[in-house]
Amino acid sequence: MSSDPTTSITVSLPGWVSSAVDFERSYESDVERMRLAVFIARENVRYETGGPFGAAIFEAETGRLVSVGVNRVVALNNSTLHAEMVAFMLAQAKLQSYTLGGPGQPAHELFTSCEPCAMCLGATPWSGVTRVVWAATREDAGRLAFDEGPVFQATYDYLTARGIRFAAGPLRDEARRILIEYDRQGGEIYNG
Amino acid sequence: MSSDPTTSITVSLPGWVSSAVDFERSYESDVERMRLAVFIARENVRYETGGPFGAAIFEAETGRLVSVGVNRVVALNNSTLHAEMVAFMLAQAKLQSYTLGGPGQPAHELFTSCEPCAMCLGATPWSGVTRVVWAATREDAGRLAFDEGPVFQATYDYLTARGIRFAAGPLRDEARRILIEYDRQGGEIYNG
Repeated sequence: MSSDPTTSITVSLPGWVSSAVDFERSYESDVERMRLAVFIARENVRYETGGPFGAAIFEAETGRLVSVGVNRVVALNNSTLHAEMVAFMLAQAKLQSYTLGGPGQPAHELFTSCEPCAMCLGATPWSGVTRVVWAATREDAGRLAFDEGPVFQATYDYLTARGIRFAAGPLRDEARRILIEYDRQGGEIYNG
Repeated sequence: MSSDPTTSITVSLPGWVSSAVDFERSYESDVERMRLAVFIARENVRYETGGPFGAAIFEAETGRLVSVGVNRVVALNNSTLHAEMVAFMLAQAKLQSYTLGGPGQPAHELFTSCEPCAMCLGATPWSGVTRVVWAATREDAGRLAFDEGPVFQATYDYLTARGIRFAAGPLRDEARRILIEYDRQGGEIYNG
């Protein structure tokens, strides 16, 4: 192995995303928004481009889609690339802002196919989103041996006090089935 | 603003890193390892290439330097790019592995100029490092209005039970002075 430093990396969505996701329409309801997050989680498993998780960031008011993320941990050899983190990074790159919650910005919401792990929850206040909604729960993920890390009631209390709202949302069964399907395919449990 | 999706981003170290950091020598002691993390934190402020934080990952046994990271939040418009996260990403890219703790791998340690925030602590178990050492404490960062997020004693208990060791290390005063210097320069507090 070379001792030359690695000084840059690229974080990218799989190629199928551009044609599979409609960035022109608006996503009006929680169900429509979650349907997109769950859809890309499923496609990520089907195309074998990453783990069974998808996320999307919307303008709360207009339903405009800002970014999507899918899990890229195994595909890109990068343990930080959970779907939520990829969605945060791409939304901020698109808006050319390190926060989605700066002065003059509309409120932004994160929809994710599964309740976020400790890293992704820790990232939410820095991201600037003001609402986080999930489909499958941490128990669903845990049953598949995906570890969610050190998340406590106090974690949610802290973040809620900071002005972020959290909710278990629609489509839990659909999202849970994707986890089960990934497991059946023999998908890698990279943080078990 | 275009509604075209942003589908990839680049995470890069500042240009000065390659010439400033010696990837050939080995870093034998905790003090030598921390000196590097603190040095690059200071250089990051001096060159105005990011926030006042630096991190480095070493093979525990040999002292071989695997990667460095500096805070790139403001420079790259990306709230996830704390120094520790950048170091995780670059180490895994170099080793072409999504974990630094896989079978047959040597133990890896993270040295960081400041106690990690909730996101970075949440990332440590996925990263595969087995020891985390910091210089400045969360209280030092908090005095500068940098928020560390939802971190509790239970967080450390959980991660310690998972086999990761944590320690307040050497050079706290040096690292704290960098935070103060950043503040004096009028550096942006991007997660206050």
